[in-house]
Amino acid sequence: MKEFFKVVDLETARARSTAFDQVASGRVALASANGRVLACDCTANVDLPGFRRSTMDGYAVCAKSTFGASESAPALLAIVGSVEMGESTGVRVAPGQAARILTGGMVPSGADAVVMVEHTEPIDDVTIEVTRAVAPRQNVIEPDDDVARGSTLLSRGTRLRPQELGLFAALGSSEIEVFNRPVVAVISTGDEVVPIDVAPSPGEVRDVNSFTLAAMVERAGGIPRPCGIVGDDFDRLLSACRAALEEADTVLLSGGSSVGARDLTLEVLEALPDSRVLLHGVAIKPGKPTILADVGGRAFFGLPGHVASAMVVFHVLVRHHLEHIAGARSKPVLRIPARLSRNVASVHGRQYFLRVRLEVRDGRLNAIPVLGKSGLIRTMVDADGLVEIGRDIEGLQVGATVLVETL
Amino acid sequence: MKEFFKVVDLETARARSTAFDQVASGRVALASANGRVLACDCTANVDLPGFRRSTMDGYAVCAKSTFGASESAPALLAIVGSVEMGESTGVRVAPGQAARILTGGMVPSGADAVVMVEHTEPIDDVTIEVTRAVAPRQNVIEPDDDVARGSTLLSRGTRLRPQELGLFAALGSSEIEVFNRPVVAVISTGDEVVPIDVAPSPGEVRDVNSFTLAAMVERAGGIPRPCGIVGDDFDRLLSACRAALEEADTVLLSGGSSVGARDLTLEVLEALPDSRVLLHGVAIKPGKPTILADVGGRAFFGLPGHVASAMVVFHVLVRHHLEHIAGARSKPVLRIPARLSRNVASVHGRQYFLRVRLEVRDGRLNAIPVLGKSGLIRTMVDADGLVEIGRDIEGLQVGATVLVETL
Repeated sequence: MKEFFKVVDLETARARSTAFDQVASGRVALASANGRVLACDCTANVDLPGFRRSTMDGYAVCAKSTFGASESAPALLAIVGSVEMGESTGVRVAPGQAARILTGGMVPSGADAVVMVEHTEPIDDVTIEVTRAVAPRQNVIEPDDDVARGSTLLSRGTRLRPQELGLFAALGSSEIEVFNRPVVAVISTGDEVVPIDVAPSPGEVRDVNSFTLAAMVERAGGIPRPCGIVGDDFDRLLSACRAALEEADTVLLSGGSSVGARDLTLEVLEALPDSRVLLHGVAIKPGKPTILADVGGRAFFGLPGHVASAMVVFHVLVRHHLEHIAGARSKPVLRIPARLSRNVASVHGRQYFLRVRLEVRDGRLNAIPVLGKSGLIRTMVDADGLVEIGRDIEGLQVGATVLVETL
Repeated sequence: MKEFFKVVDLETARARSTAFDQVASGRVALASANGRVLACDCTANVDLPGFRRSTMDGYAVCAKSTFGASESAPALLAIVGSVEMGESTGVRVAPGQAARILTGGMVPSGADAVVMVEHTEPIDDVTIEVTRAVAPRQNVIEPDDDVARGSTLLSRGTRLRPQELGLFAALGSSEIEVFNRPVVAVISTGDEVVPIDVAPSPGEVRDVNSFTLAAMVERAGGIPRPCGIVGDDFDRLLSACRAALEEADTVLLSGGSSVGARDLTLEVLEALPDSRVLLHGVAIKPGKPTILADVGGRAFFGLPGHVASAMVVFHVLVRHHLEHIAGARSKPVLRIPARLSRNVASVHGRQYFLRVRLEVRDGRLNAIPVLGKSGLIRTMVDADGLVEIGRDIEGLQVGATVLVETL
């Protein structure tokens, strides 16, 4: 099977890994929708705030009653009542009149602006002087200033932040339709891998990838399903993959950095029903020996066994896949510029993801390359982010400005 | 009480809001520690990987057996065995000898490097030619390359990411000591505020702040405790605050943008036992009418009622307080440079937090100011981030590079 595949660039790999269907959606309580992805467009069914609202403590007036008013020539207005918070008042304000109002209060009919209390002087219980003119609409929020009925406020695919929840709260939506969180099975493979509560014998290592990958799935908004460790054995691996595919939207299999182990993964994929290998090898470093298959419409990633490689491939590829199947609209990736602290050689023919630590020196943000083999977890612990170095770049000089994507 | 206070700058407000004790800590399962804050230093109790490990498929050799080897003058080595994955082999490699090994395998004693299989030619079942020399330690990870026993790997106050969980997994720590998540009570006040499942009458508004603030608490790593809506009534507010202080580490009270409502908050604070107002007024826009008190060692924030103001104050002040009491070490804030799309006037005497939308135009990231009063939730929904404009800055010109902190 493998001879039909050649190494593809990251862009191609991303395109193939995002050609999967989105997960289903369902209704959740608004209070638990933080960070979820909206599954429908949100159109306003009302105006908000729905009434003319004061943004100041003061007096509701007809603006024109104050035109020309100043410290030396104040306007004299008759107080005709007070607005209680949360109530619509029966008071009507005519020219030459004013009604007491607090911040957030409903501006009474007839009034079209609010004079701040600081710009008034009480004359007696029923009269004030206004010492500064207000324009119509000054210090008020109009009934549809926040939201106009019928307008589209949010579209399907929006990742919900606190403010979006606030908008739904304002609209009275106590339940909303969001995409399900993708369920992601995580399988570790390798005869040398032991559970973390076992003391490894010489030649054995503890199962790190299950923890790093599950946590990355969680961070990406998915639900990780750790499936334990499977030895390098065709039958056991096949049955573990079958079980994983039954409950998961996506399967991550890590381990098998040896050619034999990768071949075993490919054999298992071939034996799974309705499977098609989409890529085998990506022109990135670290992470070249990455496999992606479509198994009955679900994505199956074979990730490198080296812990840092698996994490980088998750970050640059799997994460984009999960964003896509989770229904999220793609947004521009935000990178932070920093000064490279030393020369870095590029990697011929591959896009290089350099791990860097960020440190402020002399008031400038510096990107300090973290050196070390991709089998070392410490290289990821020491890193704050990744710098992408294109395959056509010959290397970077100390002092160059690089763009850092945080990890 | 209020006459003793004057408006302070944000730096002073931050210093006062971080002068609170940290919350307690406890042990949690490693798999649920993602995003938590480490409550102890982590020192390595072992070397990792603990044995010399191959990073390639090939042959374990004494490097010096290959010195001078080339395509035209290959070195001839005798195969003395194979290394099985996950096992320490009885094989010993002497000069002139080689042992088959896979990526991740344990390098047998005597060998100090691995020759990649691509740089070998099989001659017969027991002999290979090596066509490229390797240096000692080439293609191997030394026993303490990842972690050296006794070294300090992580310090108290580290916010744990997937890679830190991976490090603990490698060390066999299935439980770790982390700070508790701060419990944050959220109280909405105002006679005009109604629950979100109630249709507001004219003059009433739905309770937006409970949702935005609870979600921001969650994002900041805390546990929100929504306490509902309390009218502008001394007794009811006092008893709500007492109840909140019993179960929470920090209390957020929002609403009361009118002077009277703020005075009510101050009266309630005065009536609470062991309370001390630490600040009343911060020189920021939006968010000036912010109150902070110490009530029996717990922080009590009085936030502005305007929804966008409350969110900005959370972002620039409360978040820092929560990071501090959660035990997290402060890290440099990472801001993204963008091109300002229009002139912006500054605000005299106050640090101004301009809401901006980020948009890529002509390949450049643009920061587009989101205009609108701070009572409008839409201004936060439209915003991707905040730009801080110092109180001494006279305004910013279109085209200026601004630094955006994402929301």
